[in-house]
Amino acid sequence: MASTDKPTDPEHGKEIPPPKPEVPAAAPPAVNCFVLDVALRVLLFAAALTAVIIMVTGEQTKLIPLLGNRKAKFNHSPAFIYFVVALSVAGLYSLITILASTSVILKPFFSKKFLVYFAYTDVLILGLVASATGSAGGVAYVGLKGNKHVGWIKVCSTYDTYCQHIAGSLAVSLFASVVLVFLIWLSIFSLHRRPSAPPL
Amino acid sequence: MASTDKPTDPEHGKEIPPPKPEVPAAAPPAVNCFVLDVALRVLLFAAALTAVIIMVTGEQTKLIPLLGNRKAKFNHSPAFIYFVVALSVAGLYSLITILASTSVILKPFFSKKFLVYFAYTDVLILGLVASATGSAGGVAYVGLKGNKHVGWIKVCSTYDTYCQHIAGSLAVSLFASVVLVFLIWLSIFSLHRRPSAPPL
Repeated sequence: MASTDKPTDPEHGKEIPPPKPEVPAAAPPAVNCFVLDVALRVLLFAAALTAVIIMVTGEQTKLIPLLGNRKAKFNHSPAFIYFVVALSVAGLYSLITILASTSVILKPFFSKKFLVYFAYTDVLILGLVASATGSAGGVAYVGLKGNKHVGWIKVCSTYDTYCQHIAGSLAVSLFASVVLVFLIWLSIFSLHRRPSAPPL
Repeated sequence: MASTDKPTDPEHGKEIPPPKPEVPAAAPPAVNCFVLDVALRVLLFAAALTAVIIMVTGEQTKLIPLLGNRKAKFNHSPAFIYFVVALSVAGLYSLITILASTSVILKPFFSKKFLVYFAYTDVLILGLVASATGSAGGVAYVGLKGNKHVGWIKVCSTYDTYCQHIAGSLAVSLFASVVLVFLIWLSIFSLHRRPSAPPL
């Protein structure tokens, strides 16, 4: 025992644990990155769910002269259907990644390295959500302003509540896109700032 | 223990096998990544420029009964104006990043590390291009199919050449979005596969 070069406590004769190397100093930012990652994914889930609910519940029936009762609903426009599908996919995806990220923090069921692969799919989901927001936004703008060049009439002057729902849904979806941008930035940042890695 | 030169696992006390000499093998892919990066950015520039040119040149005049000669042009729709602006920004951005990436390969005027920061802006440009493609696509689809629920008539049955230009432009823009996805994937991949870096 005395021949070993492990330091011992003079009072109790117990081995003093060797000083920890400096790796733990780099560990907390990595853990914080995962906490921030989960927080952003929860925000993404909330935003996607809210956007879908607001869009789907935006139904309005109006009495139009000569035409009778006419209903406006999201499924009357292919762009809004695409929007609902895309945001539903984003919501489901965020739910899966929340569970995976949380399991990494609580218990390493998934490898942390495995989570890096989510960065690849985050990029695809950003493309999906951004295009869906653009698509629904483009059609909603025609509904709001009309287009005199091709004779497309304004719709929002008649269906006011319906258009408010669409506008709200689009705003939340834009927020979801921003959250996705931050998620990808966080992945790039955490990969870039890994400790003791040589510069690229 | 400290004097031995074989590293041991602090948790299990087992000897860690000596690291495989893969470091020299990992260096050439880093250079190849930059070559691929430049190639993708050249593709992005070509796609953005082509999309803008096809969209802007898509002008058609038709004789409409009772209304006389009516012209269809991209600037009659705010969605198409946004598309042209977004793709022009993407084209200009790709031109700047081509110059920066090429300067890294030929002569390290810019730091290679500096180029990693382009990954952050690539994400923004992807959001911009995807939303512009979605926006123009949503409006173009209304032009193609009309919307009987709100009485928006089809336009493409009259302005055939104009709509062909828009469809072509949208296809090229979709290709630009895919190139941007690959660019961001390449950045994540090159950051993830850096030699001798510890796992996240």
